[in-house]
Amino acid sequence: MSIQSTLDIWHEIVAAKDIERLPTIIHADAVFRSPFAFKPYPSRAALVFVLTQVLEIFEDFTYHREMVCDESQSAFLEFSANIGDKTLKGIDMVRFDQEGLITEFEVMIRPMSGLMALAEQMAPRMAKIGL
Amino acid sequence: MSIQSTLDIWHEIVAAKDIERLPTIIHADAVFRSPFAFKPYPSRAALVFVLTQVLEIFEDFTYHREMVCDESQSAFLEFSANIGDKTLKGIDMVRFDQEGLITEFEVMIRPMSGLMALAEQMAPRMAKIGL
Repeated sequence: MSIQSTLDIWHEIVAAKDIERLPTIIHADAVFRSPFAFKPYPSRAALVFVLTQVLEIFEDFTYHREMVCDESQSAFLEFSANIGDKTLKGIDMVRFDQEGLITEFEVMIRPMSGLMALAEQMAPRMAKIGL
Repeated sequence: MSIQSTLDIWHEIVAAKDIERLPTIIHADAVFRSPFAFKPYPSRAALVFVLTQVLEIFEDFTYHREMVCDESQSAFLEFSANIGDKTLKGIDMVRFDQEGLITEFEVMIRPMSGLMALAEQMAPRMAKIGL
């Protein structure tokens, strides 16, 4: 599977909120790097959980510029979304293995008001499962 | 000037902290999109000021993955830096005009502790000049 094939599936998953397909494109040892915490979450389960929550929380979730680098086996995906009356921009910085599976998923978000709106929604959900 | 030529100059400027060259690669109407504020700063002067401050504040400022997209006349540049005992990751999302001049410079930073460390350093500097 190429990086582009995985990204195509990713966009299908996002569009359909088809979270059951998520684990099929994520490596078992995938790492999630959150916009909030420095320490990574080193498990596919954590990554799947977080992405699932985000797909519930984000309104008008839209991808914009997308760049793929074969040399670093990476893709950078720019997005925007709303949470209530807050608008945010973000980037997914994704690494893939030779099979095209996601091995690292790092997210950054701006501005501060959007980041805080996401924190407000995410914190109780993550606390509930001990993350 | 190609996007890559401008990026080469950008990296020379960062390496040498040669801020006097900054305006030569930035369009007069360039917009800065800060990691903190939603509202853009629509002036080259603001962008030059902010980049100058950041070059003073960041320790061990290092660029990592870099992707250029000719179609969207853009480049995404991943970086890391330290501020005191805080380590941060960030991305510069840069747009260029047909002459290779920077027209938009958007920055995102993670994690929250790194973002807050930068805010603490930047806020008084920006307030001092009324930004």
